[in-house]
Amino acid sequence: MDKNGTALALLDEFKDDPNAQAWLWKDHTGYAEAAQITQLAAKEHPEYLAKCGGIYSSEWFFSKILHCLRVDPKVFDAAYTWVEHADYMTALLTGTCDPRIIKRCRCAAGHKAMFSDDWGGYPAKDFLCKLDKKLRRLYDTLSKKIYAIDTAAGSLTQEWSKKLGVPAGIPVAMGAFDAHLGAVGSGIREGTLVKIIGTSTCDMVVKAKATRLADVPGICGIVDGSILPGLWGLEAGQSAVGDIFNWFVSYIQAGGKDAGSHDALTQKAARLRPGQSGLLALDWNNGNRTILVDQRLTGLLLGQTLHTKPEEIYRALIEATAFGALTIINRFEEYGVHTKEIVNCGGIAEKNPPLMGIYADVTSTEMKISRSAQSCALGSAIAAAVVAGKAAGGYDNFAAAQKQMCGVKDITYKPIPENVKVYQQLYKLYRQLHDAFGIDADAGRLANVMKDLLSIKERANT
Amino acid sequence: MDKNGTALALLDEFKDDPNAQAWLWKDHTGYAEAAQITQLAAKEHPEYLAKCGGIYSSEWFFSKILHCLRVDPKVFDAAYTWVEHADYMTALLTGTCDPRIIKRCRCAAGHKAMFSDDWGGYPAKDFLCKLDKKLRRLYDTLSKKIYAIDTAAGSLTQEWSKKLGVPAGIPVAMGAFDAHLGAVGSGIREGTLVKIIGTSTCDMVVKAKATRLADVPGICGIVDGSILPGLWGLEAGQSAVGDIFNWFVSYIQAGGKDAGSHDALTQKAARLRPGQSGLLALDWNNGNRTILVDQRLTGLLLGQTLHTKPEEIYRALIEATAFGALTIINRFEEYGVHTKEIVNCGGIAEKNPPLMGIYADVTSTEMKISRSAQSCALGSAIAAAVVAGKAAGGYDNFAAAQKQMCGVKDITYKPIPENVKVYQQLYKLYRQLHDAFGIDADAGRLANVMKDLLSIKERANT
Repeated sequence: MDKNGTALALLDEFKDDPNAQAWLWKDHTGYAEAAQITQLAAKEHPEYLAKCGGIYSSEWFFSKILHCLRVDPKVFDAAYTWVEHADYMTALLTGTCDPRIIKRCRCAAGHKAMFSDDWGGYPAKDFLCKLDKKLRRLYDTLSKKIYAIDTAAGSLTQEWSKKLGVPAGIPVAMGAFDAHLGAVGSGIREGTLVKIIGTSTCDMVVKAKATRLADVPGICGIVDGSILPGLWGLEAGQSAVGDIFNWFVSYIQAGGKDAGSHDALTQKAARLRPGQSGLLALDWNNGNRTILVDQRLTGLLLGQTLHTKPEEIYRALIEATAFGALTIINRFEEYGVHTKEIVNCGGIAEKNPPLMGIYADVTSTEMKISRSAQSCALGSAIAAAVVAGKAAGGYDNFAAAQKQMCGVKDITYKPIPENVKVYQQLYKLYRQLHDAFGIDADAGRLANVMKDLLSIKERANT
Repeated sequence: MDKNGTALALLDEFKDDPNAQAWLWKDHTGYAEAAQITQLAAKEHPEYLAKCGGIYSSEWFFSKILHCLRVDPKVFDAAYTWVEHADYMTALLTGTCDPRIIKRCRCAAGHKAMFSDDWGGYPAKDFLCKLDKKLRRLYDTLSKKIYAIDTAAGSLTQEWSKKLGVPAGIPVAMGAFDAHLGAVGSGIREGTLVKIIGTSTCDMVVKAKATRLADVPGICGIVDGSILPGLWGLEAGQSAVGDIFNWFVSYIQAGGKDAGSHDALTQKAARLRPGQSGLLALDWNNGNRTILVDQRLTGLLLGQTLHTKPEEIYRALIEATAFGALTIINRFEEYGVHTKEIVNCGGIAEKNPPLMGIYADVTSTEMKISRSAQSCALGSAIAAAVVAGKAAGGYDNFAAAQKQMCGVKDITYKPIPENVKVYQQLYKLYRQLHDAFGIDADAGRLANVMKDLLSIKERANT
């Protein structure tokens, strides 16, 4: 945004410049900048990396800004500061877009911009300047204080009151990422893993701050108060889940008469038994966010014969995302973050029973579904109810609000022992491929393959 | 066939039993029997294996017969002997189906049934009996003498003369496999590699018998006179080529409106530059015949993103078959069998110019196309013309006949240097995957993956 708090995208000068529009979370173009940030932090501030899984991602704040600085300096120079969408929305509603007063949320600052109370805020000015001197100005616009969702960003303006039809002056709670509020709306508490399954997944857990918590490598951050105020919020996730199924249906099947729809493929895939197709896939069509934190990984499908059918591939892709999910759960377990319960929400969790069944079998855990069809919105409403307070008809705290407002559906998906057994065998093979292609130091020594292909591809495209 | 030389398939009793019908070359159900034969030969008769690439294939004579013996003993017991189709056809035309007089051809006996003059014929009776005692009876029906295509199987019967409209009594040349006669019809000679490209490929070269010829591991046989009389015939091949493209179009695309035909996909794929898709595939959807001789290998596709398009996959599959072709050429080279010229024939070679262009770029060799649209039939005609002899309007020898009757088309496909360069990089990665998944001892240590998946699949299907 410029000095007045106006998004550059809304200015005539920049309305056609893609770099002045919102940078989507799944934009990975800043992968080289992410690598540079990781490298510098590893050398000078390993503590920064420890709290974000060991690798700074191309999906995050400084990678994108640094990439913009390099590919479109005009946009970078015109920006007075950069603001996360979750902060921009609350600022807009409360008339606090002015960069000098805008409040930034714990969730975004902690998970994407390396903010931590441990080092008193954002990364050091020196650190940012070593990445690029021009980042000094950005640093100066970032405040030392950030806010959890139990704080009001401000109160609703007259203008937005009219547009939305709710009273002016009511408090607007601080923002957070959709997934994190979805976790709140799904009733997250210690021991409960909330999975938001849509185009990608976000996997969230909370831990009491009294807990002695290890730094968990490969996850997307351990942030004080990012999910529920006063608790550690831990986030992990898969860069693509529903997006992979969409790719197969929309791009590869492309309207084929025998299959061609998610419903038809899901129905046929549901009739297959685990292992029956002989296929195995890696769920990396959009890179791997957790636990490898490597956007330059790509998809893999193995086991095709001359008889392999689309529904078999479709099921293999679902299974691959389930194996990816299990890898995240296992990583949490290895570092003492135990999962007692899994609650799922998001479009895919609600609309695809066979998928939930496969997830239950692969993880050997009962899959519950958040009762609300709009868990993220419900989480926002819970935050609003807490910020408003009991006196205004709301709640004193999140536990009380969640108890009243959250729940799971009656239908749950229980693991079927004979399927669990087959998936344990398949998961071993998945891990073999995962480690061989995804881990540089692995004995498989194939970690170069996907990257070399991307380099060749880049050269072919220039 | 039974004792009268009647094919069991033609008897009422067996007309509905698939095991009594012709066993297609690409039947791999006898893989366990092939492994047993390889194991026993490695222990007791390594010389048998040396002449057939080091591994006895599930596609060959004894693997299939032993498999039938095990899965359908009724058919095995009813068969007096087993006859290759190439021998059955000539016997039928010449009225020599009687198992006591039927002539068997060098090509089939040498490449599929381990016949060699080095050990005086078929594998020893003791050897076969160790595989199964019941094979003794089969052994007794196999003659000590086999015949090249410069010999007459007999002369055309009255019955077939009427059916075919050619004079009775004319000599009928000994048979050979379609591909081998295709090589003859494509003008094969020393230094010329003939590739028959159809659903699968067959790659053939000949070498003077004076040459000191190494045993070439992983090829499908080195047989005296199997292609041209008096020369070593060397055969290699890929278990699936066109079959893989057909699988993708018929099974996976399944009539998708945006693509769905070989022509449409080929046209779009031809517009891509080498390396541009970031994809890499292994051409093992039907196992690997040369150089790994392992039918329990399966397909692999790697490098998919959320934007990968069908034509990119289609091209990657074509490229995979080209890399497979190069692997065969390299193997010949490593053992001193040098390729000076490549002549292609078969449906795909004639009808798919972009594919031939890719083959030229990948192998860095000009691709020529056999002039005849029916090179295999032409090879048969050449054999007939030689067997008939000059006096009857034919030829004295194959060189003279080929000189008159064979040629290549005007259009050839020359390698494009900049494409060659990119494919050299891609081929390195192909070899990395090839070795990691295909070679047990490779450091990649992934050779278990495809096989474990097949074992899991087999258990899931029972």
